Amino acid sequence: MEKIKAVAGIDIGGTNTTFGFVDRSGKILAGGQIITSRYDKPDDFVAALYEKMMITAQNSGYDIEIPGFGIGAPMGNINRGTIEHAANLPWKGIVPLADLFARHTPLPVIVTNDANAAAVGEMIFGGARGMKNFVVITLGTGLGSGFVVDGKLVYGHDGFAGELGHITIKTGRSDRECGCGRKGCLETYVSATGLKRTVLQLMADRLDDSELRKLSFGELDSKLICEAARRGDPIALEAFEHTGAMLGFSLANVTVHTNPEAIFLFGGLALAGELIFEPVRRHLEENILYIYRGRVKLLPSELSTQNAAVLGASSLVWFEQERV
Amino acid sequence: MEKIKAVAGIDIGGTNTTFGFVDRSGKILAGGQIITSRYDKPDDFVAALYEKMMITAQNSGYDIEIPGFGIGAPMGNINRGTIEHAANLPWKGIVPLADLFARHTPLPVIVTNDANAAAVGEMIFGGARGMKNFVVITLGTGLGSGFVVDGKLVYGHDGFAGELGHITIKTGRSDRECGCGRKGCLETYVSATGLKRTVLQLMADRLDDSELRKLSFGELDSKLICEAARRGDPIALEAFEHTGAMLGFSLANVTVHTNPEAIFLFGGLALAGELIFEPVRRHLEENILYIYRGRVKLLPSELSTQNAAVLGASSLVWFEQERV
Repeated sequence: MEKIKAVAGIDIGGTNTTFGFVDRSGKILAGGQIITSRYDKPDDFVAALYEKMMITAQNSGYDIEIPGFGIGAPMGNINRGTIEHAANLPWKGIVPLADLFARHTPLPVIVTNDANAAAVGEMIFGGARGMKNFVVITLGTGLGSGFVVDGKLVYGHDGFAGELGHITIKTGRSDRECGCGRKGCLETYVSATGLKRTVLQLMADRLDDSELRKLSFGELDSKLICEAARRGDPIALEAFEHTGAMLGFSLANVTVHTNPEAIFLFGGLALAGELIFEPVRRHLEENILYIYRGRVKLLPSELSTQNAAVLGASSLVWFEQERV
Repeated sequence: MEKIKAVAGIDIGGTNTTFGFVDRSGKILAGGQIITSRYDKPDDFVAALYEKMMITAQNSGYDIEIPGFGIGAPMGNINRGTIEHAANLPWKGIVPLADLFARHTPLPVIVTNDANAAAVGEMIFGGARGMKNFVVITLGTGLGSGFVVDGKLVYGHDGFAGELGHITIKTGRSDRECGCGRKGCLETYVSATGLKRTVLQLMADRLDDSELRKLSFGELDSKLICEAARRGDPIALEAFEHTGAMLGFSLANVTVHTNPEAIFLFGGLALAGELIFEPVRRHLEENILYIYRGRVKLLPSELSTQNAAVLGASSLVWFEQERV
């Protein structure tokens, strides 16, 4: 049996947790998933996950040597190896994830937020290979981000850098409530959920006919809105325009912080292609300071597969080991 | 005569250019200045500055060995050793400053913007000693900033990181024109000039009696506004409140990018003390995402002397040499 080094990459989401054993070239040798929401206690979750992973490794057809575990999770904190107050997970408060893993294994366990994992994945396996300064924006239920400066992921003093979903924007009209308890956060406009909210607002404000008027808020999702826009639906098209305007405006402000070479869009909403890229690019260039104009590339993630999160998580270990 | 290593630190401003020879402990052995605006051509300026510096070094009473030249200038670019399109200097377009110095000396010449120089100065000689992640905000005619991440100054892909003066803010009312050609930039509200503009807006909007109503826009300055506020003038007090609200709100957004341990305020407006610090701190905490609440220190620069800019510029060379 072939002996091979492969990092265990783990993506913890509110519904499912996906894992894979990833070799240095980014190939996933074996993988699987468990249902996150089935476990009320994080220690039961980690025990079940660890057991499933070990069985998967044994049945993979490879003799896998695991250098470590890389975990991407909402509100994952690299300094403390914890998940802290994640709104979308079943466990409240602070979850000592790395310590829970340490009950099962002496190997290194690196925890960070899912968007940071995506940024490292982009640098190691994706479109940011060779880049030293870039930003990855993940567009899912919320908006996440990871910053790379001078070839290194930015963690910040408390391990919570890159929470661009919680930039607040003053719009001059009543601002949207955010899950964080504040109002007007960027992700209330720019995310799959934000797009839905914008569709509702537009249907309230305007008289245009739209196929989306037949759907309830519960039935609506970004895929349906995207399909409607492709058929020329005026409300759906305008919702993408609004979303792109908010993101383009905000990315012009992001640029003045770290002056990135490129900004990558990743996740479900990025799959809408030019429907989202065109307005973002236009509003970014309209709002950007002259010294950056035409110099910041807006690119789709090259990790846009269902395995991206696992690749990103695994690259944390490959990357951190190479840094040492 | 005592032989001693001292970096030439140079601060290029629109009116004056100040220089000093700074030893590793931050002591200025000798210094002087020339009038920037007297030189129409940058090569004449550099020739005159270099000659004045050499004479000053010779007459200093020390046998100075110069490891290099560190220069802080508006729109200074470290990658190219240039000043690019600086609105407040007499020279238009791109000034190849390092190349002009190279006609006179083979020693290293490091150019960056004045706020980046202030940030390195804070780390080497000031209140950020021992900190790895912090931001310095300079409040002068405009608003500048320098970011330090993981112990290193952030330059970005094009060498133009940290232009926080040009974050744009949507206020919902007609936005202020900025020297950069856009509207609503942070420095149009938060700077010595921004404070003056806010005083005028308040005098237009309100009926309160104020000693500032006797002064023209040309006569007003931030020192007079500060003195009026200390005497309880309602317009002056409200102007500081508005300025603090704008800066506090913006710093809450800055925090989500790099999660700094501290934010330092530097420059003329920072000397107003609690008049500016109290509202900034209050609005920062009101607007900040819960994971950062109470964790970001808002501090006055410890380089608040007239020599700060020269110290900062010199520390570029000390710092860069230690990095190699």
